[in-house]
Amino acid sequence: MAFTVAGQRVSIAALEEFCERVLTGLGVSAKDASATTAALVTTDTWGVYTHGTKLLRGYARRLRAGGLRADASPVIAEAGPAWALVDGQAAMGQVISTFAMEAAIQKARESGVGFVTVRNSCHFGAAGYYAWLASQAGMIGIAMANDVPSVAAPGSRGPVLGSNPIAFACPAGADDPILLDMSIATVAGGKVFARCKRGEPIPPAWLIDDQGRPTQDGTLYPERASLAPMGGHKGYGIGLFIEILSGALSGAAVTKQVGSWLFGDMAAPTNHGAAFLAVNVGAMMDPAMFYGRIAALAREIHAEPTADGSPPLMLPGEMEWRNRRRAEVDGIELPEDVLASLEETAAECDQPFISQPNIGRAKALPPV
Amino acid sequence: MAFTVAGQRVSIAALEEFCERVLTGLGVSAKDASATTAALVTTDTWGVYTHGTKLLRGYARRLRAGGLRADASPVIAEAGPAWALVDGQAAMGQVISTFAMEAAIQKARESGVGFVTVRNSCHFGAAGYYAWLASQAGMIGIAMANDVPSVAAPGSRGPVLGSNPIAFACPAGADDPILLDMSIATVAGGKVFARCKRGEPIPPAWLIDDQGRPTQDGTLYPERASLAPMGGHKGYGIGLFIEILSGALSGAAVTKQVGSWLFGDMAAPTNHGAAFLAVNVGAMMDPAMFYGRIAALAREIHAEPTADGSPPLMLPGEMEWRNRRRAEVDGIELPEDVLASLEETAAECDQPFISQPNIGRAKALPPV
Repeated sequence: MAFTVAGQRVSIAALEEFCERVLTGLGVSAKDASATTAALVTTDTWGVYTHGTKLLRGYARRLRAGGLRADASPVIAEAGPAWALVDGQAAMGQVISTFAMEAAIQKARESGVGFVTVRNSCHFGAAGYYAWLASQAGMIGIAMANDVPSVAAPGSRGPVLGSNPIAFACPAGADDPILLDMSIATVAGGKVFARCKRGEPIPPAWLIDDQGRPTQDGTLYPERASLAPMGGHKGYGIGLFIEILSGALSGAAVTKQVGSWLFGDMAAPTNHGAAFLAVNVGAMMDPAMFYGRIAALAREIHAEPTADGSPPLMLPGEMEWRNRRRAEVDGIELPEDVLASLEETAAECDQPFISQPNIGRAKALPPV
Repeated sequence: MAFTVAGQRVSIAALEEFCERVLTGLGVSAKDASATTAALVTTDTWGVYTHGTKLLRGYARRLRAGGLRADASPVIAEAGPAWALVDGQAAMGQVISTFAMEAAIQKARESGVGFVTVRNSCHFGAAGYYAWLASQAGMIGIAMANDVPSVAAPGSRGPVLGSNPIAFACPAGADDPILLDMSIATVAGGKVFARCKRGEPIPPAWLIDDQGRPTQDGTLYPERASLAPMGGHKGYGIGLFIEILSGALSGAAVTKQVGSWLFGDMAAPTNHGAAFLAVNVGAMMDPAMFYGRIAALAREIHAEPTADGSPPLMLPGEMEWRNRRRAEVDGIELPEDVLASLEETAAECDQPFISQPNIGRAKALPPV
């Protein structure tokens, strides 16, 4: 249950101001700093702290080293009536991906559907943010990307595919969008690190060692273990098609050719690939009717009987929207590791940290 | 290992002739009988016997009762530059779905991408067949559909979503298309029935009982148990978005409103929904370059070291294409339950069964 224990909180506005200041201080334009900040801080407000402002420090290092180009802007390299290919020019992944989803939305306004592939990108943070952008435009959005291999295939000794995130968002009128954001691994690597740090055992289905056997030794990851694919061959198969759409079709790097944004050469672009789809609901159905149908589906799911001790069923994203409401009222409850990372970023970038009273102990809130 | 034990075999041509004869005998046009037969028999040649000609008997019953309309033809109800909505008019699901994917392919020829939703359809067999149609046109294809709920959500006591199949196909030039066809359940319900029939235990992760608890009692399914979602909340989430794209957006029935094609009222249309996406590779990249990139990806995967005792990694669909080659040489090795179903279909439809020498004991083939 998030937010029942008081922790460090930061106001949304103060966190945004800090991110934008760090980025513009590194030569990023105000517009691009704003786009990147919106992605990172929105993700933090959802409680998805692994993909929010915690990433800023690594991006800042890359911007300083040149692997991310502060002055680059993505361009549409080729396009047709319902598609485009974006060359990211090694700009920030958030800048490129926002540009690409906006291009997909524009194509979908014109043609009903817009599909945009991306090359020369970098790590883009939370896929869900870009899918959500489409839902804000009244469209169903899908966002995906490839990454450095970290996930095994059934039977493999090593990683074969990246975590290859995919996200879906569906607008719901006055209700919050339905928002699913997942990787193809059984669990995120960050959860393995967290269990190791706390000295807790790793569940048997999470990791595959370098002999291709399941292992519960979390210290092997990532050097000598890879993440098990979600649902075995199904996760592997979905991940392969994400690789094809994001990487093979876009002209980006594929699997082992993708650079590691965090551990690779900071001066070399990573050439991540990505793909974005926008489906213009309003072109296909009266939006009010669609929202009514989505509301009926949501009501049905919420009314499902659940097991003893289980809370009511939730729609994907529902917890994230609750977190968002709390963050708007009381600031974002950043975990200690994220705050530490932000403070280090401030020091490394010669920027003052977020000032009091915008950061401090949160008020204890009643349980959700 | 398929095909190492000799069983009943039927030549592809004889099985096609039989299916077409049964369907035209029930008033289906030669063209529609041919489309349906192509879907069913191709699926059998892949070794996916649960979704091949075994379905013919149920379809024939529906055709006789009127829930499937032999004389109906799907129509494009609405369309834009890159999308269409197909009203299936309660024709056969295979006829509607072939029509819809062909419409998606045509839209993708014009606009680069084609997205087609479908309402008033029925059970469509193997999603992979329609994805494969796109790959035959040099496109990446995605096919999905909703169905009567049979799959639990994490925490639910009963089924919340259908098996909601989704398939992806990618053309690979002179090589076989990559072909992934999956449901959102951990395993297909057919595997539960098969284990029960053989008196074998059900693995702990397959079924959820009507109290929302895992169960290994296969006799509870489907009345008092539902299938566990693949990857927990991930399978549930993917299934929900398949429901939204196939059902909510198309105007088809959604979740519990979908009719059961096999157990429901045979005289009432089921109003299944579906959705099809075609991505025109050639519009976005020189096909030879794309096929080269896919071949490099395939080589990399095939070269991955595997665990002791594990065969080399396969691409999705690779086993199905091996089965297809065998079927072309030696006929289709139909399981006994499929043959029995076909013989019952012949009797129920007053049609002669497949004649000798087109059916008989298969030659024993060396192990794959």
